[in-house]
Amino acid sequence: MNRLLVLQSDFGLVDGAVSAMIGVALEEARDLNIHHLTHDITPYHIEEASYRLFQTIDYWPEGTTFVSVVDPGVGSKRKSVVALTKRNQYIVTPDNGTLSYIKDQVVAVREISEVSNRRANTEHSYTFHGRDVYAYTGAKLASGHIRFEEVGPELSVERIVEIPVVKTTQGPDWVQGVVDILDVRFGSLWTSIKREDFQKLSPDFGDRFEVTIYNNDMLVYQNQVVYGKSFADVRIGQPVLYVNSVYRLGLAINQGSFSKAYNVGVGPQWSIQLKKI
Amino acid sequence: MNRLLVLQSDFGLVDGAVSAMIGVALEEARDLNIHHLTHDITPYHIEEASYRLFQTIDYWPEGTTFVSVVDPGVGSKRKSVVALTKRNQYIVTPDNGTLSYIKDQVVAVREISEVSNRRANTEHSYTFHGRDVYAYTGAKLASGHIRFEEVGPELSVERIVEIPVVKTTQGPDWVQGVVDILDVRFGSLWTSIKREDFQKLSPDFGDRFEVTIYNNDMLVYQNQVVYGKSFADVRIGQPVLYVNSVYRLGLAINQGSFSKAYNVGVGPQWSIQLKKI
Amino acid sequence: MNRLLVLQSDFGLVDGAVSAMIGVALEEARDLNIHHLTHDITPYHIEEASYRLFQTIDYWPEGTTFVSVVDPGVGSKRKSVVALTKRNQYIVTPDNGTLSYIKDQVVAVREISEVSNRRANTEHSYTFHGRDVYAYTGAKLASGHIRFEEVGPELSVERIVEIPVVKTTQGPDWVQGVVDILDVRFGSLWTSIKREDFQKLSPDFGDRFEVTIYNNDMLVYQNQVVYGKSFADVRIGQPVLYVNSVYRLGLAINQGSFSKAYNVGVGPQWSIQLKKI
Repeated sequence: MNRLLVLQSDFGLVDGAVSAMIGVALEEARDLNIHHLTHDITPYHIEEASYRLFQTIDYWPEGTTFVSVVDPGVGSKRKSVVALTKRNQYIVTPDNGTLSYIKDQVVAVREISEVSNRRANTEHSYTFHGRDVYAYTGAKLASGHIRFEEVGPELSVERIVEIPVVKTTQGPDWVQGVVDILDVRFGSLWTSIKREDFQKLSPDFGDRFEVTIYNNDMLVYQNQVVYGKSFADVRIGQPVLYVNSVYRLGLAINQGSFSKAYNVGVGPQWSIQLKKI
Repeated sequence: MNRLLVLQSDFGLVDGAVSAMIGVALEEARDLNIHHLTHDITPYHIEEASYRLFQTIDYWPEGTTFVSVVDPGVGSKRKSVVALTKRNQYIVTPDNGTLSYIKDQVVAVREISEVSNRRANTEHSYTFHGRDVYAYTGAKLASGHIRFEEVGPELSVERIVEIPVVKTTQGPDWVQGVVDILDVRFGSLWTSIKREDFQKLSPDFGDRFEVTIYNNDMLVYQNQVVYGKSFADVRIGQPVLYVNSVYRLGLAINQGSFSKAYNVGVGPQWSIQLKKI
Repeated sequence: MNRLLVLQSDFGLVDGAVSAMIGVALEEARDLNIHHLTHDITPYHIEEASYRLFQTIDYWPEGTTFVSVVDPGVGSKRKSVVALTKRNQYIVTPDNGTLSYIKDQVVAVREISEVSNRRANTEHSYTFHGRDVYAYTGAKLASGHIRFEEVGPELSVERIVEIPVVKTTQGPDWVQGVVDILDVRFGSLWTSIKREDFQKLSPDFGDRFEVTIYNNDMLVYQNQVVYGKSFADVRIGQPVLYVNSVYRLGLAINQGSFSKAYNVGVGPQWSIQLKKI
């Protein structure tokens, strides 16, 4: 492994939790390079944690180890696991759906044995596996102190816990998916519709599409929107449809917030249809 | 020393203050590994800064250097000090109460001499000792550029400024302390009651306790709560009493916020009693 | 170059954008030391990004590389550039005004050639130059994988895009400037008035000044304020005029927020006059 350890959680950075995780990792291996994905995952929001892994792991070097702790079931019977990906990256996480968005990259998965891979003398603490199990195991793997085989017993990749995914549907002049997540700071909608599916509509930059958004059965937005390369292709305050940085369709307002402007949320109940005009 | 430098402050990460501190430290010693505890200490909240050190320093390697700057008295006569702990860690900080929660670990303390351990040419700036004195001195210590004896004159450990601490009291079937701090992101109360004192009540997981919380003389909460290993031992939305990750008693709502639900704050005026039923 | 890479943006730390930038930089060069200025620049606020560079780059070692991405015009014809400063630091940024506050330190500037200095296979993504161009080019420079001359064609330093700056004006007993920015966490006003100009009034600590603040033509604040070394020179809750950590005049309330107390904002329309009494 490459000694790179990347941490993610819903712990925030306002208290000492993340710092304790870093300290534990460095206590295990002083030569680790520790970085962060985000610690501002919405509390308990497993889907979001999964998406952030999907959004970033491809941009990190082969052999990087990720620790992702969004763990509403800490202390329950949910398993603690390490997934190995095609690019020899490790994901250390509770098996609670966090692996959903990257499951197609997972080639093997093992359950963490708390006998060998839990910090000593933590048997009276049941609430901070991020420190006592995940950061600790991640540090051992990232430093090469243990091999993948020493994590614990192998599990079936097929049985990884998955969040249900809404499939993209498509007609000759339309494509429909859901709003997966927000580009939080700028309020843009990131949809599940892949560029390759959208391309089947033979779009050209400058074309207009009818965009329809439903929250379950309630119509929330319906309007014509230009397909552009980037936000600057429309005037400030105008909406634009674009291919985002993970090659899926996004919907933004140039220098505004689409999400706030129309009160659009995320999740499987937020469907979005793009229809060529 | 081990070249690990950990920074804490109430400066936030929204402007350039913390970055200037990092730069100054790296200017002193390029081979430092710099990490962060938190920079989101409530402004001027010395107790919180002290607690975050207590919560984390044991998880960092021996020989780590911490810089903690919550300094409402910057420019006053409060002393700047370095404390040396039993585990050969340094704490570089104003002597304003920040050392309270870890005082029993301090074996020696020295006042920082601003003649030798203040950045050159900063004599017209009186407001950013975090950069000009603390980060600078921390970097010198963490890199071994100066020895502890070169910090400045030795002070008496007994005379370190301390925040008054409310003692835990106890009867045959009850124990009483205060709410020290929040697990901020999740709204759980972290009390001053240690696991070892609570154990004198011979609790078993699943036992019920009457929990009573006062804000000074005003009753704020009184109810029966289950003692569990972790949040998952109760249903979502139910309260649970548990041993937290620093081995003190915590009070949480599973996937909710106890603090927000009952408007509970922190500090010596927030007393909490646990009584066996 | 010194292998130090410092990132700044308005992306926030709540999603995966910054992490993807770090990953891309480490993919280019595993031995980089990556730090952060801030990622909480107010969205699209170029002036703020520029000020944060001005506030910090002098405290970082010679040869450090900075990447600053506040880029409301991503996808427009604004240029991507690298500026070289007197202290051999690089600033990798869109040429949109971000270099304004540090322009007097810039000795050369080159446009980034997207032919050679853009990540491969990103030709369908037009919205994340922070990852695909700026972090990538910054990593190449910080690691010495390319020389400055290989960035792209040289541009004229004089033609760098600049935000208009309001000049300080001065009479025998007064000096006038604007509120450039806030010390965000503490609500102090940081003005454009330099210590050297203020010194022409021959101030002594303890002197009183009449401070007048206008928002365009509307009087917002007028009162006598003591000139002190630091906040602790006045009582808690009292205002104080002081020289801040970048040697300009600041206006604070000891342990309060001047900005919130009087609803003072920042920018060229917020003028401030200091008059000796």
